[in-house]
Amino acid sequence: MTQLVYNFAEGNMNMRDLLGGKGANLAEMTGLGLPVPQGFTLTTTACHDYQVNHQLGQELLHQVDQALEQLSEISGKRFEDEHNPLLISVRSGAAISMPGMMDTILNIGLNDKTVAVLAELTDNERFAYDSYRRLLAMFGNVVYGIAEDAFDQVLTDIKTQKNYESDLDLTTEDLKAIVAEFKQIYRDSDKGEFPQKPKEQLLAAIRAVFESWDNQRARIYRRENQISEDLGTAVNVQEMVFGNAGADCGTGVAFTRNPATGENKLFGEYLQNAQGEDVVAGIRTPQSVEVLATEVPQLYDQLQDIAKTLEQHYHDMQDLEFTIEHGKMFLLQARDGKRTPAAAVKIAIDLVNEGLLSKQEAILKVKPESLTALLHPEFDAETMAEHPVLTTGLPASPGAATGQVYFTAATAKQASDEGHRVILVRQDTSPEDIEGMIVSQAIVTSRGGMTSHAAVVARGMGATGVVGASELNVNYAKKQANVGDQLIEEGDWLSVDGTTGNLYLGPIETTPATIKGDLSVLLEWAKKFAKLGVYTNADTPRDFQKALEFDADGIGLTRTEHMFFKPERLLQMRRVILARTAEQRAEPLSHLLEMQQADFYELYKLAGDKEVTIRLLDPPLHEFLPHDMAEIQEVAEQINVSVDYLTERIDSLKEINPMLGHRGDRLAITFPDIYQMQVKAIMTAVLRLSDEGQIVHPHIMIPLTDSQTEMGWVRKLVTDQITEMLADKEITIDYTVGTMMEMPRACVTANQVARESDFFSFGTNDLTQLTFGYSRDDVGSFLPEYIKKGILPADPFQTIDVEGVGELMKMAVNRGRLTKPDLPIGVCGEVGGDPTSINFFEKIGVTYVSCSPFRVPVARLAAAQAHILQTA
Amino acid sequence: MTQLVYNFAEGNMNMRDLLGGKGANLAEMTGLGLPVPQGFTLTTTACHDYQVNHQLGQELLHQVDQALEQLSEISGKRFEDEHNPLLISVRSGAAISMPGMMDTILNIGLNDKTVAVLAELTDNERFAYDSYRRLLAMFGNVVYGIAEDAFDQVLTDIKTQKNYESDLDLTTEDLKAIVAEFKQIYRDSDKGEFPQKPKEQLLAAIRAVFESWDNQRARIYRRENQISEDLGTAVNVQEMVFGNAGADCGTGVAFTRNPATGENKLFGEYLQNAQGEDVVAGIRTPQSVEVLATEVPQLYDQLQDIAKTLEQHYHDMQDLEFTIEHGKMFLLQARDGKRTPAAAVKIAIDLVNEGLLSKQEAILKVKPESLTALLHPEFDAETMAEHPVLTTGLPASPGAATGQVYFTAATAKQASDEGHRVILVRQDTSPEDIEGMIVSQAIVTSRGGMTSHAAVVARGMGATGVVGASELNVNYAKKQANVGDQLIEEGDWLSVDGTTGNLYLGPIETTPATIKGDLSVLLEWAKKFAKLGVYTNADTPRDFQKALEFDADGIGLTRTEHMFFKPERLLQMRRVILARTAEQRAEPLSHLLEMQQADFYELYKLAGDKEVTIRLLDPPLHEFLPHDMAEIQEVAEQINVSVDYLTERIDSLKEINPMLGHRGDRLAITFPDIYQMQVKAIMTAVLRLSDEGQIVHPHIMIPLTDSQTEMGWVRKLVTDQITEMLADKEITIDYTVGTMMEMPRACVTANQVARESDFFSFGTNDLTQLTFGYSRDDVGSFLPEYIKKGILPADPFQTIDVEGVGELMKMAVNRGRLTKPDLPIGVCGEVGGDPTSINFFEKIGVTYVSCSPFRVPVARLAAAQAHILQTA
Repeated sequence: MTQLVYNFAEGNMNMRDLLGGKGANLAEMTGLGLPVPQGFTLTTTACHDYQVNHQLGQELLHQVDQALEQLSEISGKRFEDEHNPLLISVRSGAAISMPGMMDTILNIGLNDKTVAVLAELTDNERFAYDSYRRLLAMFGNVVYGIAEDAFDQVLTDIKTQKNYESDLDLTTEDLKAIVAEFKQIYRDSDKGEFPQKPKEQLLAAIRAVFESWDNQRARIYRRENQISEDLGTAVNVQEMVFGNAGADCGTGVAFTRNPATGENKLFGEYLQNAQGEDVVAGIRTPQSVEVLATEVPQLYDQLQDIAKTLEQHYHDMQDLEFTIEHGKMFLLQARDGKRTPAAAVKIAIDLVNEGLLSKQEAILKVKPESLTALLHPEFDAETMAEHPVLTTGLPASPGAATGQVYFTAATAKQASDEGHRVILVRQDTSPEDIEGMIVSQAIVTSRGGMTSHAAVVARGMGATGVVGASELNVNYAKKQANVGDQLIEEGDWLSVDGTTGNLYLGPIETTPATIKGDLSVLLEWAKKFAKLGVYTNADTPRDFQKALEFDADGIGLTRTEHMFFKPERLLQMRRVILARTAEQRAEPLSHLLEMQQADFYELYKLAGDKEVTIRLLDPPLHEFLPHDMAEIQEVAEQINVSVDYLTERIDSLKEINPMLGHRGDRLAITFPDIYQMQVKAIMTAVLRLSDEGQIVHPHIMIPLTDSQTEMGWVRKLVTDQITEMLADKEITIDYTVGTMMEMPRACVTANQVARESDFFSFGTNDLTQLTFGYSRDDVGSFLPEYIKKGILPADPFQTIDVEGVGELMKMAVNRGRLTKPDLPIGVCGEVGGDPTSINFFEKIGVTYVSCSPFRVPVARLAAAQAHILQTA
Repeated sequence: MTQLVYNFAEGNMNMRDLLGGKGANLAEMTGLGLPVPQGFTLTTTACHDYQVNHQLGQELLHQVDQALEQLSEISGKRFEDEHNPLLISVRSGAAISMPGMMDTILNIGLNDKTVAVLAELTDNERFAYDSYRRLLAMFGNVVYGIAEDAFDQVLTDIKTQKNYESDLDLTTEDLKAIVAEFKQIYRDSDKGEFPQKPKEQLLAAIRAVFESWDNQRARIYRRENQISEDLGTAVNVQEMVFGNAGADCGTGVAFTRNPATGENKLFGEYLQNAQGEDVVAGIRTPQSVEVLATEVPQLYDQLQDIAKTLEQHYHDMQDLEFTIEHGKMFLLQARDGKRTPAAAVKIAIDLVNEGLLSKQEAILKVKPESLTALLHPEFDAETMAEHPVLTTGLPASPGAATGQVYFTAATAKQASDEGHRVILVRQDTSPEDIEGMIVSQAIVTSRGGMTSHAAVVARGMGATGVVGASELNVNYAKKQANVGDQLIEEGDWLSVDGTTGNLYLGPIETTPATIKGDLSVLLEWAKKFAKLGVYTNADTPRDFQKALEFDADGIGLTRTEHMFFKPERLLQMRRVILARTAEQRAEPLSHLLEMQQADFYELYKLAGDKEVTIRLLDPPLHEFLPHDMAEIQEVAEQINVSVDYLTERIDSLKEINPMLGHRGDRLAITFPDIYQMQVKAIMTAVLRLSDEGQIVHPHIMIPLTDSQTEMGWVRKLVTDQITEMLADKEITIDYTVGTMMEMPRACVTANQVARESDFFSFGTNDLTQLTFGYSRDDVGSFLPEYIKKGILPADPFQTIDVEGVGELMKMAVNRGRLTKPDLPIGVCGEVGGDPTSINFFEKIGVTYVSCSPFRVPVARLAAAQAHILQTA
């Protein structure tokens, strides 16, 4: 005989599959001796039977009867008892909580007779009829499928007619009339009379729960969330307790600790003489739960004991619902409490100190992503509430910023120089805008995705960024933008929330954030338990300084090209590109050499004994050239060539698909002197520091490598240059030359490529572009649709695509280590800072990740979690 | 004791590694009883010893002495013999023939004494001194490294002084004087006297051969051709015979069959009283070898016998060198003879008929690539010789064409309509030029590579094509082009050789080619022995008709987008693209439906019971929109929208990397109605043919698929449409829906993608682009450099990159067949017609290839060869 019904006392937390989440939880709490209203659970097996037979089987009905009998014995109440009628709630409860399914029916057991008994028993006729009309409405709606509106209309009509402000104004007589009208609604429907027999009510409710498992909303939800159809739902039947049965009654919700700050003190709200839904409905303003401490201290103490018991048992802060019925405390629900990121960190640390969690467990309690909220300024919540949202874009780089709008890099720079706080608003950005971006509090674009230039640069700089705000029309010519009728002119104030993607007209004050106290403790622990190194992508001492403050292990990626965009450098770079011969390139290259060695010197100096990996020139040359006529004329004059020549040269460098064109180490093959200059700059800086007593081991990274032969060729270019520079020196410098793994070909031939590489570093941005055939700059027109339709589970530029890109990475790791078992392998693309991706990287044996400075703490925590989970 | 020296009688053909190619061959022919001048071979082992010790070892010297002794016995001649001096040649001979190494020294053994003996013996003093002066020059140059010029100058001076026209005018006295002067050159060098001792001459020559293995040119050649350094070279020492010792002497070269036509008749040239180099030098005009038949019939018969023996032995047409010394025939060399493609085919067929080859062996004898020469018109060789080459581009599409130059598709079309033969000359071409391309005899571009739009379309149409002729400057504005000073104006005549890439000013007549006779026999056999199917890429009935003439198995790829470029269709397509809603798209789509179903009807009709695979829309939408202002204005008027709106829409469709953008089935996800229309057009055609009694099984191919979910989504779109159309029909139509494999992600997840695919077809163009990260349109700036530097062995768009792209393909085949063991898998990229690639495809289990019509025979032969080799 299969047991299809369990009393709460019979189950426990481990029986989720059979009893559902709620049922197992109620059983667990019962087992802990907590004052849970008693009841029983119909198992998911019973649900399966129902799916097959479309009726409640004899055995189930028999077991329900037995359980009701036992419940009557425990509670001393009984269906239709003249003195003490049993009232119950029926709730669904799958193993995984699921919207769309029937949730709750309260007050089952009430009928025309018991309502009067209840009134007498509680000495509160109004309460009894209020409960009855609630049952009628809930039952009618969820069991019989009568529209909710029909019941609401009755209430509305009476309140209008009597000029009531709220439901609380309804008198007993009103409620009796409402009950009568509600019963008429049943008669008017095709369902007939409201069933007066409590048993009939119960069985109809059970059937409704089982059927709701199969309704369309639930099915869609399961399909979208990949929840098995076979899971089924349990049904929980529980004795009702009433918080609204008088002044010695009440209901409340409480957190065992403060969910906003993490403070270890009971925190919550209490409403005297009310049922749970009154708290949620916000009809009356609840008091702090502390009111109990003064008014009914023994109940407050009991609540604190319950809190303690729960935390001791669940090893986490709990969110609980309770009801007091005539001075007796009942616990209705307890679960892990939601909390702010700051509270999450504090609670995790405190629980370790209290001996409730190990450090590893504490590390697993904090969502890595949530740390970003702790690392950026935020808007003052109260001020923000007064501002309507202008429009919403993609939350590209978290933080909050307020400032005056400028539409070009140049005007932004000028305004900033004049002391203004600047928001740069553009259709999109390009490397030429970099100086304007640096000075801006926030960067806003109307186009582009989460990995567009604007988004990447904003995150890299830790600036607030909102991109792809498609409702925003930017008109450069008119120096204005608009969202519908709302006009934004140059100099207008705009506030930008990079965490939500919201834009607000006008200024909103921000509160700065810090990394200290609990967060620094947590991150120290994380560092101890992480196996993956966490490096930063940094192109400037400013970026690197930030990353060092966040305890980065070093630099995993310095993009040297960003160094060429300052005006005096851009000029020299342009002279290099426009030269006709290697001889003509020599002179401007010598200027660039001078400037680059100073850049590298600063980075190495700052790094101390931390490692710095420098990637040689990557982007196509045309990115450095001017594009509009005015600029072309200016540049032609600057570098003393004809406009025709310059135009022709720009034209000849234009590419149809620049992403797949003449860039990266392909430039080294055709213009070896540019890479030679960069290597020279690196070594000049290294030798200078050597003279000053600092030993640097440079790591030189080659982008875009496709093959062993290509890597071998470039490697020789690099090592020849270094050998030449060290020829007449007394010292030896240990250095490595490694390759970006970003071309699928390099991944599948990694065993060969490894022969010429001292390390690998995955460039997941390019690798994802090529594996999918998606241009990051162009996915805006279809990728959102792919995600919306569920064709892609997530944006692969934000979270690694494990099955495709990940498979190539795994192949590259395995094949690379076939050749060199100890090959260091990093990840320096966008996903290097993404927790889900980091978990995957740990699995396949990556050595380190590198991400933008502000993501270093996130990555560190994710790395620790990945390693803890992997070794658990 | 290692045997380091082998007499010719001791070796055979299988000893190539030890005796080198030439030594093994001489030994083999000796074994056949052919009249080869005798001698011996120093082994490659001897060469290795020399590389190590840098001198000739005692054992080797001993064995050389023994071999010389034996040679003396066989020949009855001996070094420095007063009556019958032994003269020998020394030749290098590695297992693989290799330029850059020392080749030949003749007449070793001559000195101041033996030259007189030779004169007496042959009664030809002039011959003797002529031989001596030749030895002095060759030995001085190749053994002592004295510049050839020094010797040449002496001859030139005497001829000038005496007013001689050729070397033949030199008298005995002249030659004696020359010998004296040559010896003076030795004295003037730092090498001293010419060594008079024959033994000393021989050993110096042997050392020179061994050393030449290590010279720079040979090393570079080995590195470039991946020939092992360990191979080493053998040295062949052979008795001299003299074709220049009198009127009963002579020398000749002969082919056992006619190398131009394949006719089974001895073909060659003979020069009386001459040495071999006289034939090569072209100083005297040789006679046909048939002269022997009348003048010395028994020698001609002997030559025919030799030819027969050689063919019987080698099972192929041979190219042989012979010398007649005083009426005695000597065979100096025999090897497989070079031949024209036409001859190759005829000889292969004849050899089968003669019982010398199996059909399989015959198939292996013809180079697939060579067939292209048989399938295109050619220039008349004599006329062409009179034309200087204007410039040379890439030979993109073989054939020869002559016509008048036009620089735009429109003017080309107009000129063609007026009856002109047109050559379209452009910087590059785009889909908009298609109508101009169709009417052109040849397409010439100044930019782009072998897989540029112009090249692909030209090959597809079988039109002659030369692309990337970079010396050609095309000025659209002036309607002219130039190569340096040479100006080409609109309407000028130009001749284009697509096989060599040469351009010629003025008209040159062409001779048409046919597929018939021997070629059709060979291709029939090939079809029998091939396992891979050979389909064609065809977008029009015209293309398909051509392919059917070449016996294609059907269509492997129809690119439906090319059908949209005719003016009336382009208009409707533009209306589709510019519509704001699905409702607005409906009407123009209905027009396109009408036209597409007619296209498909024609193709299916032509196909009969052959299979046709239709690929749904692939390119990005902006390709269909106008780009210059005049055109934009015209189109805006045509479709009744404002220029502003059109410009904005064109702008919004522009992509930074269109290759990686919104195209292929990504369009289906966002605009399902376009694919629905195409499926409807296919099924309408199918149903129409069904009514007419022709059963069609449509194969529908989805481009750009990345994942199972994506393929599943599009598959459902297709099958829903078909199901809907068949709902009220009595018939069932078998159809398949398959995917292009062109994204690396699809390859690595092929086991998943196969679940939703009835077939795979590799799009190797895109797959190669993505695997390497190379844009076909942009590789011109670096790919040539990669190939030149040896970083890439070949252009991966022309020959499959086995290690990278091939690895992904192998993975896709294996994983796809894990899911569906019988999954049909095709290749429809450019390399589908490349023999080397086809061999790889056979290996990994591809089912069929699809290529442009004119490559079908090439692919068929390659497929047969691949299967024969694989199963050998």
